[in-house]
Amino acid sequence: MTERSLVFPVAEFRARVRRLQAGMAAAGLEAVLLTTAADIFYISGFLTRFWESPARPWFVVLPATCDPVAVIPTIGAALMRQSWIEHIQTWDAPDPVDDGVSLLAGVLADLVPEQGRIGVPMGLETHLRMPLADYHRLCGQLAPRAFVDATDCLQRVREIKSEAEIAKIRNSCAIAARAFDRIPEIAGAGRPLDAVFRGFQALLLEEGADWVSYLAGGAGQDGYRDVISPARTVPLVAGDILMLDTGAVHDGYFCDFDRNYAIGRASDLARRGHAGLWAATQDTLAAIRPGLRACDLHRLLHRSIVAQGLTPGGGRLGHGLGVTLTEWPSLTARDQTPLRSGMVLTLEPGAVLRPGVTMVHEENIVLRETGAELLSPRAPTDLPELL
Amino acid sequence: MTERSLVFPVAEFRARVRRLQAGMAAAGLEAVLLTTAADIFYISGFLTRFWESPARPWFVVLPATCDPVAVIPTIGAALMRQSWIEHIQTWDAPDPVDDGVSLLAGVLADLVPEQGRIGVPMGLETHLRMPLADYHRLCGQLAPRAFVDATDCLQRVREIKSEAEIAKIRNSCAIAARAFDRIPEIAGAGRPLDAVFRGFQALLLEEGADWVSYLAGGAGQDGYRDVISPARTVPLVAGDILMLDTGAVHDGYFCDFDRNYAIGRASDLARRGHAGLWAATQDTLAAIRPGLRACDLHRLLHRSIVAQGLTPGGGRLGHGLGVTLTEWPSLTARDQTPLRSGMVLTLEPGAVLRPGVTMVHEENIVLRETGAELLSPRAPTDLPELL
Repeated sequence: MTERSLVFPVAEFRARVRRLQAGMAAAGLEAVLLTTAADIFYISGFLTRFWESPARPWFVVLPATCDPVAVIPTIGAALMRQSWIEHIQTWDAPDPVDDGVSLLAGVLADLVPEQGRIGVPMGLETHLRMPLADYHRLCGQLAPRAFVDATDCLQRVREIKSEAEIAKIRNSCAIAARAFDRIPEIAGAGRPLDAVFRGFQALLLEEGADWVSYLAGGAGQDGYRDVISPARTVPLVAGDILMLDTGAVHDGYFCDFDRNYAIGRASDLARRGHAGLWAATQDTLAAIRPGLRACDLHRLLHRSIVAQGLTPGGGRLGHGLGVTLTEWPSLTARDQTPLRSGMVLTLEPGAVLRPGVTMVHEENIVLRETGAELLSPRAPTDLPELL
Repeated sequence: MTERSLVFPVAEFRARVRRLQAGMAAAGLEAVLLTTAADIFYISGFLTRFWESPARPWFVVLPATCDPVAVIPTIGAALMRQSWIEHIQTWDAPDPVDDGVSLLAGVLADLVPEQGRIGVPMGLETHLRMPLADYHRLCGQLAPRAFVDATDCLQRVREIKSEAEIAKIRNSCAIAARAFDRIPEIAGAGRPLDAVFRGFQALLLEEGADWVSYLAGGAGQDGYRDVISPARTVPLVAGDILMLDTGAVHDGYFCDFDRNYAIGRASDLARRGHAGLWAATQDTLAAIRPGLRACDLHRLLHRSIVAQGLTPGGGRLGHGLGVTLTEWPSLTARDQTPLRSGMVLTLEPGAVLRPGVTMVHEENIVLRETGAELLSPRAPTDLPELL
């Protein structure tokens, strides 16, 4: 028997499979086909950065009643054998003639009767990680079996975290929090923003991140223009607000929160903005509870920002968090997802402080029956100044 | 006019568009729809780590004769306006009712006549980064317009690098080379492998990487079991061979090469393996020239490994490199892609030294009319020992 190198005990994965299979039974699905790094890690524990290469598709099939089957490139066999998955089929990928399609079709044909339905995540916030032409070939080879949307099935299970998952996310948050505490080592007037970004990633690694899948941020007088740009080489100057927002990863689980810092003395505008966003978050933390919908929480956050005398920024104000940087649900006016105990969420209120200048605040929580429990250590009430 | 923050002059992007449009004309495509980070960065210069979030689709449409149109989430508008793309349409994503589909359908309907063809990359080593159900909706809204495979069109253009691109990849290789030179600072007997992985990523950042999208490797007596596993906490011991393989990124361009180190004195087996792979690479470097096909280069590498008395490892023995860690072509027995001047490739010969123990060697080159030009500084002939 190969030595296992799993992030969780096998029981964790078996519990996930049971929950998924219950949803599949309710939806009338004989199998679900998974193709993304997140879905495959979630069900198998298969964790590798090799997904960065777009060359090869990877498949895991979850049948209605038995254990998952991995249909993967040979190069992944040794690592998959360390997971709890016993049924592994491989081919030499990439193969321009038949890149795993026939092998996968054979596995699915054995598991799913001709009148059966195969679920694939096709809905909001999903994509199919295999060549589209190969998917069409697969559908053709398996006809008259029907391919139907399995988004709901995956979402309802993945968005409720186990205590083991919550502990992982809390740990990733703690790593980022220790790195944020060391910001004065790397940021200040005269430091170019790109050097700050590099330095912060190094701090995250020093503090225990396995890798840093996401770092964004911004800097500008009183606030920043947007929150998704890569860093420029422009040095920080007094009056700038520096924001860093990170998705650091440990054992495959993300944190996702940001922190703001004034370079030198903060302007009144920036201090009021920070204090207002902090208070809006605090009000929302006190009000959130299971039974609300994602759109209700969006409205709570929006109202709390307005109540602080701030102009809310557009877009969503938070989202799920776990094996990807962002997960369902989205805190928008249109997302009807019911909030349930066990959901891990970001609260991400933003404000436009003056035209073209924004500020964003972010915390990570787990929703309990009694309300919100913080996973990120709460940001300081007052905007920190790097003097 | 907004300040532009492009990795290249606008002329570089215009040249890419001209080459793509020539291919589109030959293929009879009225538009190409792009959805991935790599394709959109390639055509627009839009560079952000925000792709890490699976929540929102992003679209760029390249018409047959005019400039590209970006159809993107509002959160990306400020950054896209800094690119050379003038035509930008936005919607508030994620929207569970209509996540950009109607907006995108409108743009495509204006550009493509009803009997026209819209190209989408559907082939080997591609995927569609949007929800499958939304793609089906899009096809329905645009019928009778046909959606056809545009992989060849993209591949033939992207795989030939401009001098500006080659300079970027050379720079990323130089960053990694400087980090590899500093390996003795972080690796040696007693150091846990996961700490080495963290330390190496920090070195890459210190040496100028914007971020480290890929780091894999392995360690074991005489060699390693596989090359895609994340690091364990096991300390390195004398006799281990440590391999690190990195895709570090600067200005959106990757390097992808590895280096091997003996912990303490190297065994004869490991030294012979390293010397054989080095020599096999050297023989191939001397033989490679435009006009060969990818499968010919695979055969050259395979034969060179055998000629060194080694047992070749399975799978592909190299691949294209550029805006993703791996690109077309793949150096496999089945890939017929003709090799042309301007291609950037990895040569990645591997050998099975004894059952379950492998070693892999890797260099990055650009193919010139006269043959291979190294982009990664050549690995040392003799296996380095960390004493």
